[in-house]
Amino acid sequence: MQKISHPVYYADYLQLERLLSSQSPKSAEHGKPAHDETLFIIVHQAYELWFKLIIHELDSVIHLFEGNYVDEKNIGVAVSRFSRITEIQKLLIDQIRILETMTPLDFLEFRDFLFPASGFQSVQFRLIENMLGLQPEQRMLYNKEAYYASVSAEHQEIIRQSEGKPSLFKLVELWLERTPFLDFHEFHFWPSYRAAVEKILQNDRDTILNNPLSSAEEKQKQLQELAQNEENFAAVFDEAKHNQLIEKARRRLSHKATEAALLIHLYRDEPILHLPFRLLTLLVDLDELFTTWRYRHALMVHRMIGNKIGTGGSTGYHYLRATVERYKVFGDFIDLSTFLIPRSALPELPEKVKKNLGFYYSQKSDE
Amino acid sequence: MQKISHPVYYADYLQLERLLSSQSPKSAEHGKPAHDETLFIIVHQAYELWFKLIIHELDSVIHLFEGNYVDEKNIGVAVSRFSRITEIQKLLIDQIRILETMTPLDFLEFRDFLFPASGFQSVQFRLIENMLGLQPEQRMLYNKEAYYASVSAEHQEIIRQSEGKPSLFKLVELWLERTPFLDFHEFHFWPSYRAAVEKILQNDRDTILNNPLSSAEEKQKQLQELAQNEENFAAVFDEAKHNQLIEKARRRLSHKATEAALLIHLYRDEPILHLPFRLLTLLVDLDELFTTWRYRHALMVHRMIGNKIGTGGSTGYHYLRATVERYKVFGDFIDLSTFLIPRSALPELPEKVKKNLGFYYSQKSDE
Amino acid sequence: MQKISHPVYYADYLQLERLLSSQSPKSAEHGKPAHDETLFIIVHQAYELWFKLIIHELDSVIHLFEGNYVDEKNIGVAVSRFSRITEIQKLLIDQIRILETMTPLDFLEFRDFLFPASGFQSVQFRLIENMLGLQPEQRMLYNKEAYYASVSAEHQEIIRQSEGKPSLFKLVELWLERTPFLDFHEFHFWPSYRAAVEKILQNDRDTILNNPLSSAEEKQKQLQELAQNEENFAAVFDEAKHNQLIEKARRRLSHKATEAALLIHLYRDEPILHLPFRLLTLLVDLDELFTTWRYRHALMVHRMIGNKIGTGGSTGYHYLRATVERYKVFGDFIDLSTFLIPRSALPELPEKVKKNLGFYYSQKSDE
Amino acid sequence: MQKISHPVYYADYLQLERLLSSQSPKSAEHGKPAHDETLFIIVHQAYELWFKLIIHELDSVIHLFEGNYVDEKNIGVAVSRFSRITEIQKLLIDQIRILETMTPLDFLEFRDFLFPASGFQSVQFRLIENMLGLQPEQRMLYNKEAYYASVSAEHQEIIRQSEGKPSLFKLVELWLERTPFLDFHEFHFWPSYRAAVEKILQNDRDTILNNPLSSAEEKQKQLQELAQNEENFAAVFDEAKHNQLIEKARRRLSHKATEAALLIHLYRDEPILHLPFRLLTLLVDLDELFTTWRYRHALMVHRMIGNKIGTGGSTGYHYLRATVERYKVFGDFIDLSTFLIPRSALPELPEKVKKNLGFYYSQKSDE
Repeated sequence: MQKISHPVYYADYLQLERLLSSQSPKSAEHGKPAHDETLFIIVHQAYELWFKLIIHELDSVIHLFEGNYVDEKNIGVAVSRFSRITEIQKLLIDQIRILETMTPLDFLEFRDFLFPASGFQSVQFRLIENMLGLQPEQRMLYNKEAYYASVSAEHQEIIRQSEGKPSLFKLVELWLERTPFLDFHEFHFWPSYRAAVEKILQNDRDTILNNPLSSAEEKQKQLQELAQNEENFAAVFDEAKHNQLIEKARRRLSHKATEAALLIHLYRDEPILHLPFRLLTLLVDLDELFTTWRYRHALMVHRMIGNKIGTGGSTGYHYLRATVERYKVFGDFIDLSTFLIPRSALPELPEKVKKNLGFYYSQKSDE
Repeated sequence: MQKISHPVYYADYLQLERLLSSQSPKSAEHGKPAHDETLFIIVHQAYELWFKLIIHELDSVIHLFEGNYVDEKNIGVAVSRFSRITEIQKLLIDQIRILETMTPLDFLEFRDFLFPASGFQSVQFRLIENMLGLQPEQRMLYNKEAYYASVSAEHQEIIRQSEGKPSLFKLVELWLERTPFLDFHEFHFWPSYRAAVEKILQNDRDTILNNPLSSAEEKQKQLQELAQNEENFAAVFDEAKHNQLIEKARRRLSHKATEAALLIHLYRDEPILHLPFRLLTLLVDLDELFTTWRYRHALMVHRMIGNKIGTGGSTGYHYLRATVERYKVFGDFIDLSTFLIPRSALPELPEKVKKNLGFYYSQKSDE
Repeated sequence: MQKISHPVYYADYLQLERLLSSQSPKSAEHGKPAHDETLFIIVHQAYELWFKLIIHELDSVIHLFEGNYVDEKNIGVAVSRFSRITEIQKLLIDQIRILETMTPLDFLEFRDFLFPASGFQSVQFRLIENMLGLQPEQRMLYNKEAYYASVSAEHQEIIRQSEGKPSLFKLVELWLERTPFLDFHEFHFWPSYRAAVEKILQNDRDTILNNPLSSAEEKQKQLQELAQNEENFAAVFDEAKHNQLIEKARRRLSHKATEAALLIHLYRDEPILHLPFRLLTLLVDLDELFTTWRYRHALMVHRMIGNKIGTGGSTGYHYLRATVERYKVFGDFIDLSTFLIPRSALPELPEKVKKNLGFYYSQKSDE
Repeated sequence: MQKISHPVYYADYLQLERLLSSQSPKSAEHGKPAHDETLFIIVHQAYELWFKLIIHELDSVIHLFEGNYVDEKNIGVAVSRFSRITEIQKLLIDQIRILETMTPLDFLEFRDFLFPASGFQSVQFRLIENMLGLQPEQRMLYNKEAYYASVSAEHQEIIRQSEGKPSLFKLVELWLERTPFLDFHEFHFWPSYRAAVEKILQNDRDTILNNPLSSAEEKQKQLQELAQNEENFAAVFDEAKHNQLIEKARRRLSHKATEAALLIHLYRDEPILHLPFRLLTLLVDLDELFTTWRYRHALMVHRMIGNKIGTGGSTGYHYLRATVERYKVFGDFIDLSTFLIPRSALPELPEKVKKNLGFYYSQKSDE
């Protein structure tokens, strides 16, 4: 592994001459240099560098999940790359604190010189959203225009193209739908799960009705709660109802993929399901961290410009705050918790199935 | 300073025997020990310890601000104690990550044993909210009942009493209203500020109308934005309008205190105003961090229980999310950014006033 | 799963009455209440609560690794619990910032009242060290006495007993030594690995000697470096040399366990080795985070008391700083990086072996 | 403040085309693209961007402290800019976690292609060290050569020049030496302080000798500790001894500046001394955070390359670890804690002096 080529120099390798000469404060151009504009530029440049890295990581995972088959080895790779993205996201959130060392008054020294540039014009951030699987119909209008309207024609083209490509959401959904374990030998997950849930709900009803400690009023209230739980479950048991919720955009994940995701959560201790479980958990982490980032970002903008209109012409804080909840991508994976049941109530797996969920070696070392 | 008393032992000093024997998992009591219940208990106990410390710090600052006069020395003390609270708040937010190492499935192993206990019953957290100045009328009903309805009679009493005590918000407002610099010698802040703003707005209007680069449509749009800016300022210039907004609960801070807070922000570089400026900034930090905590907490609850009803009977995530924005206390201080103007447009202070905003020493060392 | 028992109350469940009445500042007892002593007590109590949780998690993993066989399922469980410990450790490090909001001058207000109590008397921290596998012979004397000399007789007994129990280090070493894949069917890891390394080193030597770009002096220097690399490898290839290093306390991990750990790192992409790889990585994380904590703690003590003698009588900062490097437990796992070689230089696994490292299912779904 | 110029576009303003095309992995150049090299490049580029910002902030503070007089207003500005640097430093430390998501094995895929580039060649980091005040004589040799030997001639020139410029350490020292309050009207700080210390030490001696609870042996031990305390104080009381320590490089801060720094710490509650106190505290924060960064960086390098020689030819971890303690700049400010005494033992300030340490206004509003 000895190195044969010309010696590499740190500054050349990192292209520091370019990198460190790419900060041109507008305030200086206008003859009114504002100390904090350097901070402002560098914070945003750091964001864009990290966005590039997130795209690099997402791109590689999307590539692993394309096609009709995902090698088990690649689940571990995807888990590592998603973990990396979550570490980057934590940094992106903390980085807001650095921007907040600039006071609103200091921002005013150069804010008008930036008109109408805005973080809203970050092409890379739009690409990340689309790669994850944010849907065009989830988007809010921005000053009565599409979310890409404020960028250049060339950039619009890039963003529009990304809308058409298979997203992480879609590829994970397809991968889940291919899970062979939903009906596997004599094991049929969905009816077993349903029976277990129904037993729990019946048991809950009996306990409420026969509880000598609770008053009629309390029983009434508890039965109402139980009824809501039953309704939740009914919506997931009945594929037709599930599909209606999808049409109303209240669900997104297909029924079959939902079944598979539940199976993975409930039997995650089986070796073959452990890494898939971690992968699903990381999708929730990714969503939670982007959501947190959006919310912190909205708070920061509020602090910086109050209720003024943003440099990009948006109504600033209120627009940003409204996107926070709307722009979740993996909400269905978070909602899965609604349908989990305790391990002790889970149907026992048949021995033959268990064997198939373990490692080959651990079964028959002599083969 | 030599120590005279009996030797102190670490474990006794910290009362570790009590502290470390105060974790009694319900799952073990029910004969079904769940590994993660210890995590669950300790995370919540750590929260309560930090809440006690926050109360200790808030209490001391409230004490410093009671009465009709706050010694300048105490502004520095208050700034230090608020800074400490913000460090604790950052920890409280990060601590959520530890709770999230418990998966929803693991929570199910003991969740039912806790019924109907809930973090909503944290008396200390309610006290913190009331000490900061959250108003009873800002509160949302919780299962159609008052926010204190789910705690014991004794605890209700404690919470109700805290509602009646002077809050940090109120005491800071009074302190701001006493500021002597609004009308000081020949300097009258409000009319000077108003004149400066009007000059800026007029200048903006001229620039828009005379800009040869922009189309009629663009001019139209820019004039609309300008009109909204003017409206914002009109609402702060006119005390009557300001008071109407207060009546509608869209503002809270009195007009006089708002004037003083603006003065402090705009002239923060004068020595006597520097620590007051830091104090106002820290109030915004406090609010931002509590708001972020509430939001992260809501996300965590969503992840843990999905759309199920919380152990305390609340509809969980949706309730929590709704409180995030509603429960801000120092929102008016965040909104101040709307009314800031660039330093270059600020009226110059008369020399005599400047002297009065500096240190005595720096004027006449021989006196 | 409906709840049958008496309703649980948040404050009772968390034993808040005890918890929140366990702060008794000595300064108040002496009639000179110091505001910051409450901070001091609560920070240390929070540390002890987290220590209890770390012990709970370590204990459970140690239990999983006892005996002669670790079920594959439990590797995933251990990985989750170690991940949890790392999240707690990050919090412990950040928590130092809260203590540092107390200035040295404020500490002086009550420091003498605490004599001779000291964090050095934390029994739980000693237990954690021993559970991880810190060896008695690694310990430094503290004021010329054993590390447990300053605690009560009862506490000494607890600490001494923990020295005799199987540590995490020992159990992981035994688990590694049992790995069946070192010699598995026709695959013999150690000679294959050794041949691959030798080929790399020979190739490096050729490249250096034949490089037309480098001067005689540069070649000389590069050959020296190469020689040192060869020496490193020689020490791991030769079990006798390895054992000599163990005797000199420069290595700790047995040769066989070292082989297994290298195998796991190098072939971590095979499904059966992926979670073991994560487990080894987490041991390095644990060590790194405890080491970082020790170092930050030492810096904090320096800041707080300067070069004074600690309340426990230690020379404070210098003692603490000296333990940082000495008290690493999993250093051998960090050093493994020295012996890694690029995947491209790795011997290809025979097909039959590969099959044995994958999932049973993925081979024969019809069985 | 309306914008007159051509509209600004986000991507142009941040020069994203340059920024995002400045990542050229060597592994791809060599035809063996390694996924993680993009991570490696971007992490280092992010570091260099933040270094540029730190230099921008340090430079501005150095400029404020040049000359013979520092306007009181500028202390607040310096405090804000130092606070900003500490926020950046926290990010730099956390950023190491992102690099650590790359495993040692993945680093091997491209490590050899980078030879002999190394983070040791970061010119900006050397400039930061020199701007802070790291002295050439504190530096360790690196492969038997000066710390700047591995960079290009042009870069060596830049680094060497920075050695000659006034450092932050030097400018703060001069500013401290100019403090007028050491001998001010009838107040003479040094003899008052010395008398207070001597009284404390005498009191300690009496307490030890007369304590009926302690054994002869304990008394002996306590008297030894007391003697060491006395010796510490003796070294600061006696300017000649202090200067000897400076000659032996065990102290750096001049005696006069040390006096002033102690005065500021002890009387920090006086308004005029409050911001200077925060400034001195921030110097300690800066040092502590850089020290922590160095230590974490050393741990990361150990983890990544084990005991191999670094790409820059250094012996890696051991070299880096050795610099951690050596390269502290503001150690004398940390050591000040050794000489603090409780507020209660402080000499009371004469009324006239107190007045001079307060705000002009608060004394005579009618003037």
